[in-house]
Amino acid sequence: MVKRVVFDAVNAVLANLCREFRELNSGHVATYIPPLARADPADFGMALTSADGHRYQAGEADKPFTIQSVSKPFVLALALTELGADEVFRRVGVEPSGERFNAISLDPETGRPANPMINAGAIATTALVPAASAEQRFTRILETLGRFAGRSLDVDDEVYRAEAATGDRNIALAHLMRAAGSLAGDPSGVLDVYFRQCAIRVTALDLSVMAATLANGGVNPVTGARVVPEPVTVQVLAVMATCGMYDGSGDWLLRVGLPAKSGVSGGLVAVRPGRSGVGCYSPLLDAAGNPVRAVAALAELSREFGLHLMHNPPSGAPTIIRPGLSDGPDEAAWRQAGGGTAPGDLPAWVAAQGELDFTAAEQLVYALAERLPEVGRGRAVIDLVRVTAVDAAAEGLVRVVLDRLTAMGHRIGFVGDAAVPFSVEGTLLASRSAAVEWARLPS
Amino acid sequence: MVKRVVFDAVNAVLANLCREFRELNSGHVATYIPPLARADPADFGMALTSADGHRYQAGEADKPFTIQSVSKPFVLALALTELGADEVFRRVGVEPSGERFNAISLDPETGRPANPMINAGAIATTALVPAASAEQRFTRILETLGRFAGRSLDVDDEVYRAEAATGDRNIALAHLMRAAGSLAGDPSGVLDVYFRQCAIRVTALDLSVMAATLANGGVNPVTGARVVPEPVTVQVLAVMATCGMYDGSGDWLLRVGLPAKSGVSGGLVAVRPGRSGVGCYSPLLDAAGNPVRAVAALAELSREFGLHLMHNPPSGAPTIIRPGLSDGPDEAAWRQAGGGTAPGDLPAWVAAQGELDFTAAEQLVYALAERLPEVGRGRAVIDLVRVTAVDAAAEGLVRVVLDRLTAMGHRIGFVGDAAVPFSVEGTLLASRSAAVEWARLPS
Amino acid sequence: MVKRVVFDAVNAVLANLCREFRELNSGHVATYIPPLARADPADFGMALTSADGHRYQAGEADKPFTIQSVSKPFVLALALTELGADEVFRRVGVEPSGERFNAISLDPETGRPANPMINAGAIATTALVPAASAEQRFTRILETLGRFAGRSLDVDDEVYRAEAATGDRNIALAHLMRAAGSLAGDPSGVLDVYFRQCAIRVTALDLSVMAATLANGGVNPVTGARVVPEPVTVQVLAVMATCGMYDGSGDWLLRVGLPAKSGVSGGLVAVRPGRSGVGCYSPLLDAAGNPVRAVAALAELSREFGLHLMHNPPSGAPTIIRPGLSDGPDEAAWRQAGGGTAPGDLPAWVAAQGELDFTAAEQLVYALAERLPEVGRGRAVIDLVRVTAVDAAAEGLVRVVLDRLTAMGHRIGFVGDAAVPFSVEGTLLASRSAAVEWARLPS
Amino acid sequence: MVKRVVFDAVNAVLANLCREFRELNSGHVATYIPPLARADPADFGMALTSADGHRYQAGEADKPFTIQSVSKPFVLALALTELGADEVFRRVGVEPSGERFNAISLDPETGRPANPMINAGAIATTALVPAASAEQRFTRILETLGRFAGRSLDVDDEVYRAEAATGDRNIALAHLMRAAGSLAGDPSGVLDVYFRQCAIRVTALDLSVMAATLANGGVNPVTGARVVPEPVTVQVLAVMATCGMYDGSGDWLLRVGLPAKSGVSGGLVAVRPGRSGVGCYSPLLDAAGNPVRAVAALAELSREFGLHLMHNPPSGAPTIIRPGLSDGPDEAAWRQAGGGTAPGDLPAWVAAQGELDFTAAEQLVYALAERLPEVGRGRAVIDLVRVTAVDAAAEGLVRVVLDRLTAMGHRIGFVGDAAVPFSVEGTLLASRSAAVEWARLPS
Repeated sequence: MVKRVVFDAVNAVLANLCREFRELNSGHVATYIPPLARADPADFGMALTSADGHRYQAGEADKPFTIQSVSKPFVLALALTELGADEVFRRVGVEPSGERFNAISLDPETGRPANPMINAGAIATTALVPAASAEQRFTRILETLGRFAGRSLDVDDEVYRAEAATGDRNIALAHLMRAAGSLAGDPSGVLDVYFRQCAIRVTALDLSVMAATLANGGVNPVTGARVVPEPVTVQVLAVMATCGMYDGSGDWLLRVGLPAKSGVSGGLVAVRPGRSGVGCYSPLLDAAGNPVRAVAALAELSREFGLHLMHNPPSGAPTIIRPGLSDGPDEAAWRQAGGGTAPGDLPAWVAAQGELDFTAAEQLVYALAERLPEVGRGRAVIDLVRVTAVDAAAEGLVRVVLDRLTAMGHRIGFVGDAAVPFSVEGTLLASRSAAVEWARLPS
Repeated sequence: MVKRVVFDAVNAVLANLCREFRELNSGHVATYIPPLARADPADFGMALTSADGHRYQAGEADKPFTIQSVSKPFVLALALTELGADEVFRRVGVEPSGERFNAISLDPETGRPANPMINAGAIATTALVPAASAEQRFTRILETLGRFAGRSLDVDDEVYRAEAATGDRNIALAHLMRAAGSLAGDPSGVLDVYFRQCAIRVTALDLSVMAATLANGGVNPVTGARVVPEPVTVQVLAVMATCGMYDGSGDWLLRVGLPAKSGVSGGLVAVRPGRSGVGCYSPLLDAAGNPVRAVAALAELSREFGLHLMHNPPSGAPTIIRPGLSDGPDEAAWRQAGGGTAPGDLPAWVAAQGELDFTAAEQLVYALAERLPEVGRGRAVIDLVRVTAVDAAAEGLVRVVLDRLTAMGHRIGFVGDAAVPFSVEGTLLASRSAAVEWARLPS
Repeated sequence: MVKRVVFDAVNAVLANLCREFRELNSGHVATYIPPLARADPADFGMALTSADGHRYQAGEADKPFTIQSVSKPFVLALALTELGADEVFRRVGVEPSGERFNAISLDPETGRPANPMINAGAIATTALVPAASAEQRFTRILETLGRFAGRSLDVDDEVYRAEAATGDRNIALAHLMRAAGSLAGDPSGVLDVYFRQCAIRVTALDLSVMAATLANGGVNPVTGARVVPEPVTVQVLAVMATCGMYDGSGDWLLRVGLPAKSGVSGGLVAVRPGRSGVGCYSPLLDAAGNPVRAVAALAELSREFGLHLMHNPPSGAPTIIRPGLSDGPDEAAWRQAGGGTAPGDLPAWVAAQGELDFTAAEQLVYALAERLPEVGRGRAVIDLVRVTAVDAAAEGLVRVVLDRLTAMGHRIGFVGDAAVPFSVEGTLLASRSAAVEWARLPS
Repeated sequence: MVKRVVFDAVNAVLANLCREFRELNSGHVATYIPPLARADPADFGMALTSADGHRYQAGEADKPFTIQSVSKPFVLALALTELGADEVFRRVGVEPSGERFNAISLDPETGRPANPMINAGAIATTALVPAASAEQRFTRILETLGRFAGRSLDVDDEVYRAEAATGDRNIALAHLMRAAGSLAGDPSGVLDVYFRQCAIRVTALDLSVMAATLANGGVNPVTGARVVPEPVTVQVLAVMATCGMYDGSGDWLLRVGLPAKSGVSGGLVAVRPGRSGVGCYSPLLDAAGNPVRAVAALAELSREFGLHLMHNPPSGAPTIIRPGLSDGPDEAAWRQAGGGTAPGDLPAWVAAQGELDFTAAEQLVYALAERLPEVGRGRAVIDLVRVTAVDAAAEGLVRVVLDRLTAMGHRIGFVGDAAVPFSVEGTLLASRSAAVEWARLPS
């Protein structure tokens, strides 16, 4: 009930976007098969799922449609999980083709399709999913997409049959790849799986959860289940960033700045790594085959919400809290603990928070060094209470610097739990209060 | 002296990378003009400048060489600053060409070069820089690159003359563009500026500062001077991400995950938005024209330092500090201020830090809503002491939610300075202590 | 027996060529299906059939092999006969693609394949052959190729099945064309016909008769049966001239100067319009897929036999015999008939032979005019005894000139049979003797 | 005066074509330089020069215009004459590019332009003309084109200067070729010659004489001067046939069937080897850059005059006159000479005329063999009185057959002059009468 207030407020923001961009009436509904041609051109739905798993939506966000090409990044994620990047990218390239979705784009030397976001590469990717049979392969794909969405998905049989009946260009691509040696096995079996994969039924809300799972390092933020490993999401998002929007990928990255993928039925996913996933449904397509309203609304959403990947400063608070004791509560704690206030009394106090990687570690030791006296022996406390993880590069750097500083006679104490991997000279202190005590000791 | 310890430690990390990858001896030095052919194939220098302006380096990071194609993103930044994105990208595209650096890649309809990172697009970009004369145009470019680097730069006249004498392909591109209507003015004047621009002398250390300026939103972190506006850096980095490494841009973004640009003399810049810029010098080039050692070392650096753009969770600490009063110093402050410890006594206490955008605002109000009672009237403190900025979308969302919650009878107080744009019911409180006082008042 | 002498002599010339070029051992036998891979690389057969139907041969000219792409011009001839050039070339282009035999080469706008000599265009051409069923379509093709060859042909079932099993690229082309709207009907039915068409079994001798039928205006010179109309042979030969040898068509026309077509099993036909057809069998193929020995031997044959289309003067005797009465037998006849020998006594006497078209008619009337006196009334005889046909343009020109000359007072008589379409002033004379009598009459 | 009748009649045929096709008003005048834009769109001139040197014309056939791309085949002829085909075609390809006149079309491996009929290849061809200076190179080109035309030509300086000022695309092509290593020397010098070459002033009548010189084996049929060797004309015409009409070359060869070349100012040449050359002037151009009226009129001219290269039977009378003594004058001569008329009395009598090549020789010996008795010894006369030349292949075949027949006991006599290279058993007879005498001798 109280949370409802938040949902209403955020949904209202999306609803405003929906209202604004629903007025775009350019473009046309895909007509190459009758079930797609029957889509309602007035439809426009948007949904956003945060990396915390909060789901927001507006417009026709619950209306089911077939996923089509938006399935590509998720099947790629499955293939990468099963086979690893080396094997997958040995068979499918990662370069933008500068061409349309159904471009042939096979490497003249190797027959390798340009990337997994165009049809040829997606068919080759589907063929890579390990399975004992076509039936089993499709089952794995359907289940994986379901885990991304956080619910069981099914297939629109009418669309599947229509695609299979008219899929000449995709049939051609599969045979061209087998001729070129870049597709193993029986083209018709693979194509059948591919046509069914494209006919899986989703909603814009589903897509937003699927996108949020990529944003969240492979863990579905709604169900809490890990779907794919974190490195796989990095790879999938990188491929989406350069190849996801066909021959408009450069313009999309310039204007929207998010990895994304669109489909011919009007679906679109966009991902802000670490923060959120967006799903749209907008059956009117522009000349490049991208959904008109979704593209326009995403550009606005990215601008308004500061989602552009190249935006600076990056979202997230600074890892290093520099001011040491000038920060209210800490200073209060210090004083409370009986720390003196004369300049000489104060140790340097440098705190960090969040994940400590090399960049943050550099900031930390730099801030530390700035606070130690050039002459004589100084004392400093490194406050890691709010640090959640320390990676190897960060650990290495901090150790080296601490060894050198202690060799110079400086005394450095730590506050943090046992997980913090520093134990220089037994200076790991149990709490901030203990640190204050320690810092007050005569050097 | 003390800081020296930090510099030594970080430099040592770079030195290790240099040592490891200096052993790569594949590739070849560019030989199309004699001054480039004389480059020492043994050279390898790396430098990293943080968004704080700390400069680290190893190997031949101080050795001067000509900037060549690495000039392209910086001249693009100048053109974007002067003319705006609409005008620039009306003349030069932003799509990866999937082709080599000297590809022709002009749009068959418009004659527009594919993007500003290939030679054709770079020449067109140079031509866009407003100036009364070729001389003045070059002066502006030289000064701008100098501001990016934080020092005065000069031109290697021998290289300039050699390029001008053998630049048939670039001459051809300029004339093709004029024929196609995509280059205004006299091709030979523009080419002369372009050849001089490519012959500007830099070091790997300079490149790292230039890259860090892009990382830092356009403010040179060493000199503190603003060189270009922040939106321009977003645009330049987006173009670098899809087009910067020629026909290997997709693979680069997959493996390294950073906007980058390489040049034929062995220079390379890579940028982690908001965090750091890297510069390399490595004259041995691979078949794609990228510096062999720099490419390999950057991949390792990105992996080790967690720089990949698609990496999740993102660097930076979480903006929202959820635990409320469970956090040591705050709880201490609370108790110290006389706050009771019985459950009923405690107001909800939600703190944020850093920049507050929509995503963070959503997290904030969601966390707030979670802590308010479903039944009855609750009290909550929103602690914005560490918040440095609030954007419009965030402000809008918070306002809407607060209006609703207060209408439901909940009482919400703020802690933060006057810059915080919330003044709901005069509840802006002067300090955390004041907030504690306020929170203890009977509702 | 006596003719044997001629056959032996001409065969010996071919045998010399065979011996000379059999020593070429570069290239490789096609290996994409096992039955082709088993071809004997030592084989080389040549055959030449003249437009008179004389057949000459050397080497393995009687060894059967599958016709493969050499079927393309003959199936094109069938389609042109049935549908006419407008309909066929609306569906299949006639421009060289500058690409390999299996290139995709579909027009990006219309989906029309570049020309009927590449696989895509040949499949589309096969699909154009009107038939109630695939079976009937193939029967028509088999019978037509048999009429070109002058004997019943059959299919190599093993090759047919192997092609059908591995024909991924052709399957792809058919589906691409259906997707692009340039192939009507069921791709698999058309492909089955196409694979069978390619597996029709022929010998080099057969190919020479087939080529000679094209050379002979569509009438098989051995059987005397008309296979296709003359205009169809003009169209087929024109397409072969620009597109028959894939991406080496320009070089072939430069060096050999004959419309030709090669196939992957080692077959090759070359045609000298009006004179002869050549068939070769040479399974070693060069990089462009053309039979090594056949290409080299044809270049030599063309040079030695003066077959190059651009050769000048053209083969064939001059149509106009200018010297009038200076020619032995005619002068003897004149004298014999009592014609005087004083200059004034002699009428102008201009003879023609063969087919009289506009160019020949111009030569005839020009020669006539040269022999008439500028002053006074002259007499002339036009001797058409050896003329076999007169086309409309020629007839028109001669009539106009004769009307003008007789109006000027000159008297012109004709010799020739009643088929000669000139009857100006009742001057058609029954014989040369009658002409002499007529010419002697006082004017 | 009398010849005037012929000129009037043929000119009237051309005038009818001019009148018919002048009504075509589609297309547009080239406008890229002002002097071309001033061309009168109403103009249409045609001229035809026969291989005998008779010149016919209609419409604006005497109106001067700049030759533009129609210069290409003639400069190619000059380069081939000076350097030979191997050297020229090592530098410039001969494959149709399937692209427009100003396409880049350089081989990605070698930098070699696709063919000499597109601008790149033409510039490279101009650069190949040996000369000590640019001035001398242009002088040689101007003089050679003058010899082709049969008169001194000059340059339109205004057009030359305009082309030089706006020739960005050609400047680009020259620099691209130098960059690719396919153009030696200074691009600007070569371009200056090329721009002047394109600005040479001609009329449609000039073009028809130039074309007729190619038709006539390199001898100008009007002046009688040899301009280039016969093999060079074969090479030039072969290149024109596949590449002369840009990306419409296949369609042109299909419909018109003649080697041809068009230019942007409205000029067009078409050549029927051995027979005639046509020149047109028609400044309205179609989308492919070909002159609208000239293209349509040539198609009609080719159809009406039977000029299509693939037309069968070929123009020219049959070389072999088979009927032997059934032919009036010969039979009369035979009787007159006292030859008996009983079947046994008659020797076989086979006559040939014109040039005797291998095909004709085969017909001759085949006809001979048909007339010799299978049993016993026969007699035959080979009448070569009207034969003008015998090539080596023909000579070889006749010799071999005669040796065999005489060895079988047959007696073969010849009639012809001493140039006939047969002297088998001293049977060369001085005249037909002598042959009759010889034939009557008892065997």
